[in-house]
Amino acid sequence: MRRGPLAVIAGGGRLPAEIAAEVLARGEEVVVLPIRGIADETLSPRRGESISILDPAGAIAALRRAGASGVVLAGTVHKPRLGLVLSGWQAVRHRDEIRSVVEGGDDNLLRGVVRFLEANGFPVRGVREVAPNLMAPKSVLTARSMSAEARRDVERGFEVLQSLGALDVGQAAVVAQGRVLAIEAAEGTDAMLRRVRGLRRQGPLGRLLRHGRPVIAERRGGVLVKAPKPGQDFRVDLPVVGASTVALTAAAGLDGIAVQAGGVLIVERALAVSRADSLGLFLEGVAP
Amino acid sequence: MRRGPLAVIAGGGRLPAEIAAEVLARGEEVVVLPIRGIADETLSPRRGESISILDPAGAIAALRRAGASGVVLAGTVHKPRLGLVLSGWQAVRHRDEIRSVVEGGDDNLLRGVVRFLEANGFPVRGVREVAPNLMAPKSVLTARSMSAEARRDVERGFEVLQSLGALDVGQAAVVAQGRVLAIEAAEGTDAMLRRVRGLRRQGPLGRLLRHGRPVIAERRGGVLVKAPKPGQDFRVDLPVVGASTVALTAAAGLDGIAVQAGGVLIVERALAVSRADSLGLFLEGVAP
Repeated sequence: MRRGPLAVIAGGGRLPAEIAAEVLARGEEVVVLPIRGIADETLSPRRGESISILDPAGAIAALRRAGASGVVLAGTVHKPRLGLVLSGWQAVRHRDEIRSVVEGGDDNLLRGVVRFLEANGFPVRGVREVAPNLMAPKSVLTARSMSAEARRDVERGFEVLQSLGALDVGQAAVVAQGRVLAIEAAEGTDAMLRRVRGLRRQGPLGRLLRHGRPVIAERRGGVLVKAPKPGQDFRVDLPVVGASTVALTAAAGLDGIAVQAGGVLIVERALAVSRADSLGLFLEGVAP
Repeated sequence: MRRGPLAVIAGGGRLPAEIAAEVLARGEEVVVLPIRGIADETLSPRRGESISILDPAGAIAALRRAGASGVVLAGTVHKPRLGLVLSGWQAVRHRDEIRSVVEGGDDNLLRGVVRFLEANGFPVRGVREVAPNLMAPKSVLTARSMSAEARRDVERGFEVLQSLGALDVGQAAVVAQGRVLAIEAAEGTDAMLRRVRGLRRQGPLGRLLRHGRPVIAERRGGVLVKAPKPGQDFRVDLPVVGASTVALTAAAGLDGIAVQAGGVLIVERALAVSRADSLGLFLEGVAP
Protein backbone atom coordinates (compact mmCIF):
# COMPACT_ATOMS: atom_id res chain seq x y z
CA MET A 1 0.00 0.00 0.00
CA ARG A 2 1.14 3.51 -0.85
CA ARG A 3 2.53 5.44 2.13
CA GLY A 4 0.93 8.70 3.18
CA PRO A 5 -1.94 9.87 5.36
CA LEU A 6 -5.41 8.38 5.36
CA ALA A 7 -7.79 10.98 3.93
CA VAL A 8 -11.17 11.38 5.63
CA ILE A 9 -13.64 12.95 3.18
CA ALA A 10 -15.89 14.68 5.69
CA GLY A 11 -19.62 15.27 5.51
CA GLY A 12 -21.50 16.78 8.44
CA GLY A 13 -21.49 15.71 12.07
CA ARG A 14 -18.78 14.67 14.49
CA LEU A 15 -17.94 11.30 12.95
CA PRO A 16 -15.15 12.51 10.62
CA ALA A 17 -13.34 14.16 13.55
CA GLU A 18 -13.82 11.06 15.71
CA ILE A 19 -12.29 8.90 13.00
CA ALA A 20 -9.36 11.26 12.58
CA ALA A 21 -8.72 11.26 16.32
CA GLU A 22 -8.79 7.44 16.43
CA VAL A 23 -6.31 7.13 13.58
CA LEU A 24 -3.99 9.71 15.20
CA ALA A 25 -4.25 7.88 18.54
CA ARG A 26 -2.82 4.81 16.84
CA GLY A 27 0.14 6.92 15.70
CA GLU A 28 -0.87 6.91 12.04
CA GLU A 29 -1.15 9.87 9.69
CA VAL A 30 -4.47 11.38 8.75
CA VAL A 31 -5.84 14.37 6.83
CA VAL A 32 -9.46 15.55 6.89
CA LEU A 33 -10.86 17.00 3.64
CA PRO A 34 -14.10 18.78 4.56
CA ILE A 35 -16.85 18.85 1.93
CA ARG A 36 -17.52 22.56 1.35
CA GLY A 37 -20.83 23.78 2.76
CA ILE A 38 -21.53 20.39 4.31
CA ALA A 39 -18.78 19.47 6.79
CA ASP A 40 -18.93 20.86 10.30
CA GLU A 41 -17.16 24.18 10.67
CA THR A 42 -15.84 23.18 14.09
CA LEU A 43 -12.23 22.23 14.37
CA SER A 44 -11.12 18.72 13.57
CA PRO A 45 -7.56 17.38 13.90
CA ARG A 46 -5.40 17.60 10.77
CA ARG A 47 -7.88 19.59 8.73
CA GLY A 48 -6.75 19.88 5.10
CA GLU A 49 -8.14 21.74 2.11
CA SER A 50 -11.86 21.57 1.50
CA ILE A 51 -13.36 19.89 -1.53
CA SER A 52 -16.62 20.23 -3.44
CA ILE A 53 -19.13 17.44 -3.74
CA LEU A 54 -19.75 18.64 -7.29
CA ASP A 55 -16.12 18.65 -8.39
CA PRO A 56 -14.84 15.07 -8.50
CA ALA A 57 -11.74 16.05 -10.49
CA GLY A 58 -10.93 18.72 -7.91
CA ALA A 59 -11.33 16.17 -5.11
CA ILE A 60 -8.89 13.81 -6.82
CA ALA A 61 -6.40 16.67 -7.22
CA ALA A 62 -6.74 17.51 -3.52
CA LEU A 63 -6.17 13.87 -2.56
CA ARG A 64 -3.01 13.84 -4.71
CA ARG A 65 -1.71 17.07 -3.14
CA ALA A 66 -2.33 15.55 0.31
CA GLY A 67 -0.41 12.43 -0.72
CA ALA A 68 -3.29 10.29 0.56
CA SER A 69 -2.69 6.55 0.78
CA GLY A 70 -6.39 5.80 1.04
CA VAL A 71 -9.78 7.35 1.65
CA VAL A 72 -12.63 7.02 4.15
CA LEU A 73 -16.05 8.53 3.43
CA ALA A 74 -17.79 9.71 6.60
CA GLY A 75 -20.48 12.05 7.81
CA THR A 76 -23.91 13.18 6.80
CA VAL A 77 -25.10 15.15 3.77
CA HIS A 78 -28.36 16.98 4.33
CA LYS A 79 -30.56 18.17 1.53
CA PRO A 80 -30.93 21.85 2.46
CA ARG A 81 -27.17 22.38 2.57
CA LEU A 82 -26.84 20.50 -0.69
CA GLY A 83 -29.19 23.02 -2.20
CA LEU A 84 -26.73 25.78 -1.35
CA VAL A 85 -23.93 23.85 -2.98
CA LEU A 86 -25.98 23.12 -6.07
CA SER A 87 -26.52 26.82 -6.64
CA GLY A 88 -22.80 27.28 -7.05
CA TRP A 89 -20.89 27.58 -10.28
CA GLN A 90 -19.60 24.02 -10.14
CA ALA A 91 -22.98 22.71 -11.17
CA VAL A 92 -22.39 24.07 -14.62
CA ARG A 93 -18.67 23.57 -14.93
CA HIS A 94 -18.45 19.92 -13.96
CA ARG A 95 -21.71 18.62 -15.27
CA ASP A 96 -20.22 15.72 -17.17
CA GLU A 97 -18.10 14.46 -14.30
CA ILE A 98 -21.09 14.59 -11.97
CA ARG A 99 -23.22 12.75 -14.45
CA SER A 100 -20.60 10.02 -14.78
CA VAL A 101 -20.92 9.36 -11.05
CA VAL A 102 -24.67 9.82 -10.70
CA GLU A 103 -25.68 7.90 -13.82
CA GLY A 104 -22.89 5.36 -13.71
CA GLY A 105 -25.15 2.46 -14.57
CA ASP A 106 -25.34 1.52 -10.90
CA ASP A 107 -28.29 2.50 -8.76
CA ASN A 108 -26.07 3.00 -5.81
CA LEU A 109 -24.56 6.46 -6.10
CA LEU A 110 -22.10 5.94 -3.32
CA ARG A 111 -20.72 2.81 -4.93
CA GLY A 112 -20.17 5.01 -7.98
CA VAL A 113 -18.16 7.40 -5.82
CA VAL A 114 -16.12 4.48 -4.45
CA ARG A 115 -15.44 3.21 -7.97
CA PHE A 116 -14.44 6.68 -9.10
CA LEU A 117 -11.98 7.14 -6.22
CA GLU A 118 -10.47 3.68 -6.64
CA ALA A 119 -10.17 4.08 -10.41
CA ASN A 120 -8.12 7.19 -9.64
CA GLY A 121 -5.76 5.25 -7.39
CA PHE A 122 -7.23 5.89 -3.94
CA PRO A 123 -8.39 2.73 -2.16
CA VAL A 124 -11.56 3.35 -0.14
CA ARG A 125 -11.48 1.86 3.34
CA GLY A 126 -14.28 1.26 5.83
CA VAL A 127 -14.72 3.04 9.14
CA ARG A 128 -14.80 -0.30 10.95
CA GLU A 129 -11.37 -1.07 9.58
CA VAL A 130 -9.68 2.27 10.28
CA ALA A 131 -11.42 3.10 13.59
CA PRO A 132 -12.57 -0.18 15.15
CA ASN A 133 -12.79 1.41 18.59
CA LEU A 134 -15.79 3.45 17.42
CA MET A 135 -17.82 0.27 16.90
CA ALA A 136 -20.13 -0.93 19.70
CA PRO A 137 -18.37 -3.13 22.27
CA LYS A 138 -20.03 -6.26 23.65
CA SER A 139 -21.28 -4.70 26.89
CA VAL A 140 -24.00 -2.70 28.57
CA LEU A 141 -23.08 0.97 28.11
CA THR A 142 -25.84 2.56 30.18
CA ALA A 143 -26.86 2.58 33.83
CA ARG A 144 -29.95 0.61 32.90
CA SER A 145 -29.66 -2.91 31.50
CA MET A 146 -32.36 -4.76 29.61
CA SER A 147 -35.18 -6.64 31.33
CA ALA A 148 -35.89 -10.29 30.61
CA GLU A 149 -38.82 -9.19 28.46
CA ALA A 150 -36.67 -6.74 26.52
CA ARG A 151 -34.10 -9.50 25.99
CA ARG A 152 -36.78 -11.68 24.39
CA ASP A 153 -37.75 -8.77 22.12
CA VAL A 154 -34.08 -8.24 21.23
CA GLU A 155 -33.69 -11.91 20.31
CA ARG A 156 -36.76 -11.70 18.09
CA GLY A 157 -35.38 -8.56 16.47
CA PHE A 158 -32.11 -10.26 15.63
CA GLU A 159 -34.08 -13.21 14.23
CA VAL A 160 -35.91 -10.80 11.90
CA LEU A 161 -32.68 -9.17 10.75
CA GLN A 162 -30.97 -12.52 10.21
CA SER A 163 -33.96 -13.85 8.24
CA LEU A 164 -33.74 -10.87 5.91
CA GLY A 165 -29.99 -10.51 5.68
CA ALA A 166 -29.61 -12.95 2.83
CA LEU A 167 -31.98 -10.74 0.83
CA ASP A 168 -29.77 -7.68 1.41
CA VAL A 169 -32.34 -5.79 3.47
CA GLY A 170 -33.08 -5.15 7.12
CA GLN A 171 -30.59 -3.19 9.19
CA ALA A 172 -32.96 -2.47 12.04
CA ALA A 173 -36.28 -3.51 13.54
CA VAL A 174 -38.56 -2.54 16.42
CA VAL A 175 -40.10 -5.29 18.54
CA ALA A 176 -42.47 -4.87 21.49
CA GLN A 177 -43.93 -7.69 23.58
CA GLY A 178 -42.84 -10.18 20.98
CA ARG A 179 -44.54 -8.37 18.12
CA VAL A 180 -42.52 -6.88 15.27
CA LEU A 181 -43.78 -3.30 14.92
CA ALA A 182 -41.45 -2.06 12.20
CA ILE A 183 -38.71 -3.24 9.87
CA GLU A 184 -36.28 -0.85 8.23
CA ALA A 185 -35.73 -1.19 4.50
CA ALA A 186 -34.76 1.91 2.49
CA GLU A 187 -36.23 4.59 4.75
CA GLY A 188 -33.52 4.64 7.42
CA THR A 189 -33.63 4.02 11.15
CA ASP A 190 -34.77 7.52 12.11
CA ALA A 191 -37.79 7.38 9.80
CA MET A 192 -38.67 3.95 11.16
CA LEU A 193 -38.56 5.21 14.75
CA ARG A 194 -40.76 8.19 13.85
CA ARG A 195 -43.22 5.76 12.30
CA VAL A 196 -43.43 3.74 15.52
CA ARG A 197 -44.02 6.93 17.49
CA GLY A 198 -46.87 7.79 15.13
CA LEU A 199 -48.42 4.34 15.35
CA ARG A 200 -48.40 4.54 19.12
CA ARG A 201 -50.16 7.87 19.13
CA GLN A 202 -53.20 6.27 17.55
CA GLY A 203 -55.84 5.50 20.17
CA PRO A 204 -56.73 1.88 20.87
CA LEU A 205 -60.25 2.14 19.44
CA GLY A 206 -59.02 3.77 16.26
CA ARG A 207 -56.97 0.64 15.73
CA LEU A 208 -59.82 -1.81 16.25
CA LEU A 209 -60.68 -2.67 12.70
CA ARG A 210 -59.32 -1.90 9.27
CA HIS A 211 -60.72 -4.32 6.77
CA GLY A 212 -60.96 -6.56 9.80
CA ARG A 213 -57.29 -6.14 10.54
CA PRO A 214 -55.77 -5.17 13.89
CA VAL A 215 -53.35 -2.35 13.22
CA ILE A 216 -51.23 -2.09 16.32
CA ALA A 217 -51.62 -2.84 19.94
CA GLU A 218 -48.61 -2.45 22.21
CA ARG A 219 -48.22 1.14 23.34
CA ARG A 220 -45.33 0.83 25.77
CA GLY A 221 -42.05 -1.02 26.00
CA GLY A 222 -40.14 -2.64 23.22
CA VAL A 223 -36.68 -2.33 21.71
CA LEU A 224 -34.76 -1.06 18.73
CA VAL A 225 -32.43 -3.70 17.33
CA LYS A 226 -29.74 -2.83 14.80
CA ALA A 227 -27.15 -4.92 13.01
CA PRO A 228 -25.24 -4.95 9.73
CA LYS A 229 -26.40 -7.19 6.92
CA PRO A 230 -24.24 -10.22 6.11
CA GLY A 231 -21.63 -9.19 3.55
CA GLN A 232 -22.41 -5.51 4.07
CA ASP A 233 -19.90 -3.11 2.50
CA PHE A 234 -18.89 -0.96 5.47
CA ARG A 235 -17.19 1.53 3.13
CA VAL A 236 -20.53 2.76 1.80
CA ASP A 237 -23.15 1.45 4.21
CA LEU A 238 -22.26 1.83 7.86
CA PRO A 239 -24.88 1.07 10.52
CA VAL A 240 -24.81 3.93 13.02
CA VAL A 241 -26.58 4.90 16.22
CA GLY A 242 -26.03 8.10 18.16
CA ALA A 243 -27.64 10.61 20.48
CA SER A 244 -30.40 11.38 17.97
CA THR A 245 -31.21 7.67 17.67
CA VAL A 246 -31.49 7.55 21.45
CA ALA A 247 -33.89 10.51 21.51
CA LEU A 248 -36.09 9.02 18.77
CA THR A 249 -36.08 5.65 20.52
CA ALA A 250 -37.35 7.30 23.70
CA ALA A 251 -39.95 9.29 21.73
CA ALA A 252 -41.22 6.01 20.26
CA GLY A 253 -41.85 4.74 23.78
CA LEU A 254 -39.20 2.03 23.59
CA ASP A 255 -37.09 0.79 26.50
CA GLY A 256 -33.73 0.75 24.80
CA ILE A 257 -31.38 -0.14 21.98
CA ALA A 258 -29.49 -3.34 21.25
CA VAL A 259 -26.81 -3.23 18.56
CA GLN A 260 -24.63 -5.98 17.21
CA ALA A 261 -21.28 -5.72 18.93
CA GLY A 262 -18.55 -4.89 16.43
CA GLY A 263 -21.13 -4.32 13.69
CA VAL A 264 -22.66 -0.94 14.51
CA LEU A 265 -20.87 2.35 15.05
CA ILE A 266 -21.87 4.52 18.01
CA VAL A 267 -21.21 8.09 16.94
CA GLU A 268 -20.36 10.49 19.81
CA ARG A 269 -20.57 7.60 22.24
CA ALA A 270 -20.29 9.63 25.47
CA LEU A 271 -23.15 11.91 24.40
CA ALA A 272 -25.31 8.99 23.26
CA VAL A 273 -24.81 7.15 26.55
CA SER A 274 -25.49 10.19 28.73
CA ARG A 275 -28.63 10.95 26.70
CA ALA A 276 -29.78 7.35 27.17
CA ASP A 277 -29.06 7.54 30.89
CA SER A 278 -31.01 10.74 31.29
CA LEU A 279 -33.95 9.22 29.38
CA GLY A 280 -33.79 5.94 31.29
CA LEU A 281 -32.98 3.80 28.23
CA PHE A 282 -30.57 0.93 27.94
CA LEU A 283 -27.92 0.74 25.21
CA GLU A 284 -26.16 -2.56 24.86
CA GLY A 285 -23.79 -4.19 22.39
CA VAL A 286 -24.89 -7.78 21.92
CA ALA A 287 -23.23 -10.70 20.15
CA PRO A 288 -26.32 -12.43 18.70
CA MET B 1 -73.54 -26.25 13.29
CA ARG B 2 -76.62 -24.26 14.27
CA ARG B 3 -78.94 -23.45 11.36
CA GLY B 4 -79.74 -19.87 10.54
CA PRO B 5 -78.26 -17.02 8.51
CA LEU B 6 -74.62 -16.01 8.54
CA ALA B 7 -74.38 -12.59 10.19
CA VAL B 8 -72.02 -10.05 8.61
CA ILE B 9 -71.06 -7.43 11.21
CA ALA B 10 -70.42 -4.53 8.88
CA GLY B 11 -67.88 -1.76 9.21
CA GLY B 12 -67.42 0.79 6.42
CA GLY B 13 -66.80 0.19 2.74
CA ARG B 14 -68.28 -2.17 0.19
CA LEU B 15 -66.79 -5.41 1.52
CA PRO B 16 -69.71 -6.37 3.81
CA ALA B 17 -72.19 -6.03 0.94
CA GLU B 18 -69.90 -7.98 -1.37
CA ILE B 19 -69.68 -10.81 1.15
CA ALA B 20 -73.46 -10.85 1.62
CA ALA B 21 -73.99 -11.00 -2.15
CA GLU B 22 -71.54 -13.91 -2.45
CA VAL B 23 -73.25 -15.89 0.29
CA LEU B 24 -76.68 -15.24 -1.25
CA ALA B 25 -75.39 -16.27 -4.68
CA ARG B 26 -74.53 -19.67 -3.20
CA GLY B 27 -78.16 -19.98 -2.06
CA GLU B 28 -77.32 -19.56 1.63
CA GLU B 29 -78.93 -17.24 4.16
CA VAL B 30 -77.27 -14.04 5.30
CA VAL B 31 -78.07 -11.00 7.42
CA VAL B 32 -75.99 -7.81 7.54
CA LEU B 33 -75.78 -6.01 10.90
CA PRO B 34 -74.40 -2.53 10.18
CA ILE B 35 -72.29 -0.91 12.90
CA ARG B 36 -74.08 2.33 13.69
CA GLY B 37 -72.28 5.45 12.46
CA ILE B 38 -69.61 3.36 10.75
CA ALA B 39 -71.20 1.07 8.14
CA ASP B 40 -72.01 2.47 4.71
CA GLU B 41 -75.47 3.97 4.48
CA THR B 42 -75.93 2.57 0.98
CA LEU B 43 -78.14 -0.42 0.55
CA SER B 44 -76.78 -3.88 1.11
CA PRO B 45 -78.69 -7.13 0.59
CA ARG B 46 -80.45 -8.54 3.66
CA ARG B 47 -79.80 -5.56 5.89
CA GLY B 48 -80.79 -6.27 9.50
CA GLU B 49 -80.87 -4.13 12.62
CA SER B 50 -77.85 -1.97 13.32
CA ILE B 51 -75.59 -2.53 16.32
CA SER B 52 -73.25 -0.33 18.32
CA ILE B 53 -69.53 -0.94 18.53
CA LEU B 54 -69.75 0.17 22.16
CA ASP B 55 -72.58 -2.18 23.17
CA PRO B 56 -71.33 -5.77 23.03
CA ALA B 57 -74.35 -7.08 24.97
CA GLY B 58 -76.70 -5.35 22.53
CA ALA B 59 -74.80 -6.90 19.60
CA ILE B 60 -75.19 -10.37 21.11
CA ALA B 61 -78.93 -9.75 21.59
CA ALA B 62 -79.24 -8.64 17.95
CA LEU B 63 -77.41 -11.76 16.77
CA ARG B 64 -79.83 -13.89 18.81
CA ARG B 65 -82.87 -12.10 17.40
CA ALA B 66 -81.48 -12.68 13.88
CA GLY B 67 -81.00 -16.37 14.67
CA ALA B 68 -77.44 -16.15 13.37
CA SER B 69 -75.55 -19.43 12.92
CA GLY B 70 -72.19 -17.67 12.74
CA VAL B 71 -70.54 -14.29 12.32
CA VAL B 72 -68.13 -12.62 9.88
CA LEU B 73 -66.40 -9.34 10.80
CA ALA B 74 -65.83 -7.16 7.75
CA GLY B 75 -65.23 -3.56 6.72
CA THR B 76 -63.24 -0.60 7.92
CA VAL B 77 -63.50 1.48 11.07
CA HIS B 78 -62.10 4.97 10.67
CA LYS B 79 -61.06 7.10 13.59
CA PRO B 80 -63.12 10.25 12.86
CA ARG B 81 -66.36 8.29 12.69
CA LEU B 82 -65.38 6.42 15.82
CA GLY B 83 -65.05 9.79 17.50
CA LEU B 84 -68.70 10.50 16.73
CA VAL B 85 -69.69 7.16 18.18
CA LEU B 86 -67.58 7.66 21.27
CA SER B 87 -69.38 10.88 22.04
CA GLY B 88 -72.63 8.95 22.31
CA TRP B 89 -74.30 7.78 25.49
CA GLN B 90 -73.10 4.21 25.09
CA ALA B 91 -69.63 5.21 26.19
CA VAL B 92 -70.94 5.72 29.67
CA ARG B 93 -73.54 3.02 29.86
CA HIS B 94 -71.46 0.08 28.74
CA ARG B 95 -68.08 1.01 30.07
CA ASP B 96 -67.41 -2.28 31.79
CA GLU B 97 -68.31 -4.44 28.81
CA ILE B 98 -66.09 -2.33 26.56
CA ARG B 99 -63.24 -2.56 29.01
CA SER B 100 -63.57 -6.34 29.13
CA VAL B 101 -62.95 -6.46 25.39
CA VAL B 102 -60.34 -3.72 25.15
CA GLU B 103 -58.32 -4.76 28.20
CA GLY B 104 -58.88 -8.47 27.87
CA GLY B 105 -55.31 -9.34 28.71
CA ASP B 106 -54.57 -9.79 25.02
CA ASP B 107 -52.89 -7.07 23.00
CA ASN B 108 -54.97 -7.94 20.04
CA LEU B 109 -58.32 -6.20 20.45
CA LEU B 110 -59.95 -7.99 17.58
CA ARG B 111 -59.06 -11.38 18.98
CA GLY B 112 -60.85 -10.21 22.12
CA VAL B 113 -63.94 -9.48 20.04
CA VAL B 114 -63.72 -12.94 18.44
CA ARG B 115 -63.40 -14.58 21.87
CA PHE B 116 -66.36 -12.57 23.16
CA LEU B 117 -68.58 -13.57 20.23
CA GLU B 118 -67.60 -17.24 20.40
CA ALA B 119 -68.04 -17.36 24.18
CA ASN B 120 -71.61 -16.18 23.52
CA GLY B 121 -72.23 -19.03 21.09
CA PHE B 122 -71.52 -17.37 17.74
CA PRO B 123 -68.66 -19.00 15.83
CA VAL B 124 -66.61 -16.41 13.94
CA ARG B 125 -65.77 -17.38 10.37
CA GLY B 126 -63.26 -15.94 7.94
CA VAL B 127 -64.06 -14.07 4.76
CA ARG B 128 -61.93 -16.49 2.77
CA GLU B 129 -64.11 -19.34 3.98
CA VAL B 130 -67.54 -17.75 3.42
CA ALA B 131 -66.75 -15.80 0.22
CA PRO B 132 -63.80 -17.53 -1.49
CA ASN B 133 -64.66 -15.91 -4.83
CA LEU B 134 -63.60 -12.53 -3.45
CA MET B 135 -60.03 -13.77 -3.05
CA ALA B 136 -57.52 -13.09 -5.84
CA PRO B 137 -57.56 -15.72 -8.60
CA LYS B 138 -54.35 -17.02 -10.12
CA SER B 139 -54.40 -14.83 -13.21
CA VAL B 140 -53.56 -11.45 -14.69
CA LEU B 141 -56.55 -9.20 -14.02
CA THR B 142 -55.42 -6.10 -15.91
CA ALA B 143 -54.70 -5.20 -19.52
CA ARG B 144 -51.04 -4.88 -18.62
CA SER B 145 -49.05 -7.89 -17.46
CA MET B 146 -45.76 -7.80 -15.63
CA SER B 147 -42.43 -7.39 -17.40
CA ALA B 148 -39.59 -9.84 -16.88
CA GLU B 149 -37.93 -7.31 -14.59
CA ALA B 150 -41.12 -6.87 -12.56
CA ARG B 151 -41.39 -10.64 -12.27
CA ARG B 152 -37.92 -10.79 -10.74
CA ASP B 153 -38.92 -8.07 -8.26
CA VAL B 154 -42.10 -10.00 -7.44
CA GLU B 155 -40.11 -13.15 -6.76
CA ARG B 156 -37.80 -11.24 -4.46
CA GLY B 157 -40.79 -9.74 -2.66
CA PHE B 158 -42.30 -13.17 -2.02
CA GLU B 159 -38.88 -14.33 -0.76
CA VAL B 160 -38.90 -11.47 1.76
CA LEU B 161 -42.42 -12.27 2.94
CA GLN B 162 -41.66 -15.99 3.21
CA SER B 163 -38.47 -15.30 5.18
CA LEU B 164 -40.44 -13.27 7.69
CA GLY B 165 -43.59 -15.33 7.84
CA ALA B 166 -42.32 -17.67 10.54
CA LEU B 167 -41.80 -14.59 12.73
CA ASP B 168 -45.45 -13.55 12.27
CA VAL B 169 -44.65 -10.35 10.41
CA GLY B 170 -44.55 -9.14 6.82
CA GLN B 171 -47.76 -9.02 4.81
CA ALA B 172 -46.40 -6.79 2.08
CA ALA B 173 -43.18 -5.44 0.60
CA VAL B 174 -42.07 -3.08 -2.16
CA VAL B 175 -39.19 -4.14 -4.41
CA ALA B 176 -37.67 -2.13 -7.26
CA GLN B 177 -34.81 -3.27 -9.50
CA GLY B 178 -34.05 -6.07 -7.10
CA ARG B 179 -33.80 -3.81 -4.08
CA VAL B 180 -36.26 -4.07 -1.19
CA LEU B 181 -37.47 -0.53 -0.58
CA ALA B 182 -40.02 -1.18 2.16
CA ILE B 183 -41.38 -3.96 4.34
CA GLU B 184 -44.74 -3.72 6.08
CA ALA B 185 -44.86 -4.57 9.76
CA ALA B 186 -47.52 -2.89 11.95
CA GLU B 187 -48.08 0.26 9.88
CA GLY B 188 -50.29 -1.22 7.16
CA THR B 189 -49.90 -1.38 3.39
CA ASP B 190 -51.21 2.12 2.68
CA ALA B 191 -48.71 3.74 5.06
CA MET B 192 -45.91 1.71 3.51
CA LEU B 193 -46.86 2.85 0.01
CA ARG B 194 -46.98 6.49 1.14
CA ARG B 195 -43.51 6.04 2.59
CA VAL B 196 -42.16 4.80 -0.74
CA ARG B 197 -43.74 7.77 -2.49
CA GLY B 198 -41.99 10.07 -0.01
CA LEU B 199 -38.63 8.35 -0.42
CA ARG B 200 -38.84 8.74 -4.17
CA ARG B 201 -39.55 12.44 -3.94
CA GLN B 202 -36.13 12.98 -2.41
CA GLY B 203 -33.67 14.15 -5.04
CA PRO B 204 -30.77 11.88 -5.99
CA LEU B 205 -28.10 14.13 -4.49
CA GLY B 206 -29.98 14.47 -1.23
CA ARG B 207 -29.67 10.73 -0.92
CA LEU B 208 -25.94 10.57 -1.54
CA LEU B 209 -24.66 10.25 1.97
CA ARG B 210 -26.11 9.81 5.42
CA HIS B 211 -23.41 8.69 7.76
CA GLY B 212 -21.93 7.27 4.60
CA ARG B 213 -25.08 5.35 3.85
CA PRO B 214 -26.96 5.39 0.53
CA VAL B 215 -30.57 6.05 1.39
CA ILE B 216 -32.48 5.14 -1.73
CA ALA B 217 -31.78 5.08 -5.38
CA GLU B 218 -34.40 3.66 -7.71
CA ARG B 219 -36.97 6.27 -8.60
CA ARG B 220 -39.09 4.39 -11.12
CA GLY B 221 -40.48 0.91 -11.53
CA GLY B 222 -40.90 -1.73 -8.91
CA VAL B 223 -43.75 -3.74 -7.48
CA LEU B 224 -46.00 -4.14 -4.47
CA VAL B 225 -46.15 -7.74 -3.30
CA LYS B 226 -48.75 -8.90 -0.79
CA ALA B 227 -49.44 -12.28 0.80
CA PRO B 228 -50.85 -13.69 4.02
CA LYS B 229 -48.52 -14.91 6.73
CA PRO B 230 -48.30 -18.67 7.28
CA GLY B 231 -50.94 -19.66 9.81
CA GLN B 232 -52.65 -16.28 9.54
CA ASP B 233 -56.08 -16.05 11.19
CA PHE B 234 -58.26 -14.82 8.32
CA ARG B 235 -61.12 -14.08 10.72
CA VAL B 236 -59.26 -11.12 12.25
CA ASP B 237 -56.41 -10.37 9.84
CA LEU B 238 -57.38 -10.39 6.21
CA PRO B 239 -54.91 -9.18 3.58
CA VAL B 240 -56.79 -6.83 1.28
CA VAL B 241 -56.07 -4.74 -1.82
CA GLY B 242 -58.52 -2.47 -3.56
CA ALA B 243 -58.86 0.65 -5.67
CA SER B 244 -57.14 2.81 -3.05
CA THR B 245 -54.19 0.39 -2.95
CA VAL B 246 -53.96 0.72 -6.73
CA ALA B 247 -53.95 4.52 -6.52
CA LEU B 248 -51.24 4.55 -3.83
CA THR B 249 -49.18 2.04 -5.80
CA ALA B 250 -49.27 4.32 -8.82
CA ALA B 251 -48.44 7.36 -6.67
CA ALA B 252 -45.39 5.49 -5.37
CA GLY B 253 -44.17 5.14 -8.96
CA LEU B 254 -44.55 1.36 -9.00
CA ASP B 255 -45.47 -0.73 -12.04
CA GLY B 256 -48.03 -2.97 -10.43
CA ILE B 257 -49.27 -5.31 -7.74
CA ALA B 258 -48.75 -9.03 -7.27
CA VAL B 259 -50.85 -10.79 -4.64
CA GLN B 260 -50.81 -14.37 -3.53
CA ALA B 261 -53.63 -16.15 -5.34
CA GLY B 262 -56.24 -17.36 -2.86
CA GLY B 263 -54.54 -15.50 -0.02
CA VAL B 264 -55.45 -11.85 -0.59
CA LEU B 265 -58.92 -10.38 -0.98
CA ILE B 266 -59.53 -7.86 -3.77
CA VAL B 267 -62.26 -5.56 -2.51
CA GLU B 268 -64.44 -4.05 -5.24
CA ARG B 269 -62.52 -5.98 -7.84
CA ALA B 270 -64.07 -4.38 -10.93
CA LEU B 271 -63.26 -0.89 -9.64
CA ALA B 272 -59.72 -1.88 -8.62
CA VAL B 273 -59.01 -3.41 -12.03
CA SER B 274 -60.42 -0.47 -13.99
CA ARG B 275 -58.42 1.95 -11.84
CA ALA B 276 -55.27 -0.11 -12.49
CA ASP B 277 -56.01 -0.17 -16.22
CA SER B 278 -56.50 3.59 -16.36
CA LEU B 279 -53.22 4.09 -14.46
CA GLY B 280 -51.33 1.55 -16.58
CA LEU B 281 -50.58 -0.82 -13.69
CA PHE B 282 -50.68 -4.59 -13.65
CA LEU B 283 -52.58 -6.55 -11.02
CA GLU B 284 -51.89 -10.25 -10.91
CA GLY B 285 -52.69 -13.16 -8.61
CA VAL B 286 -49.58 -15.31 -8.34
CA ALA B 287 -49.02 -18.74 -6.81
CA PRO B 288 -45.52 -18.25 -5.40
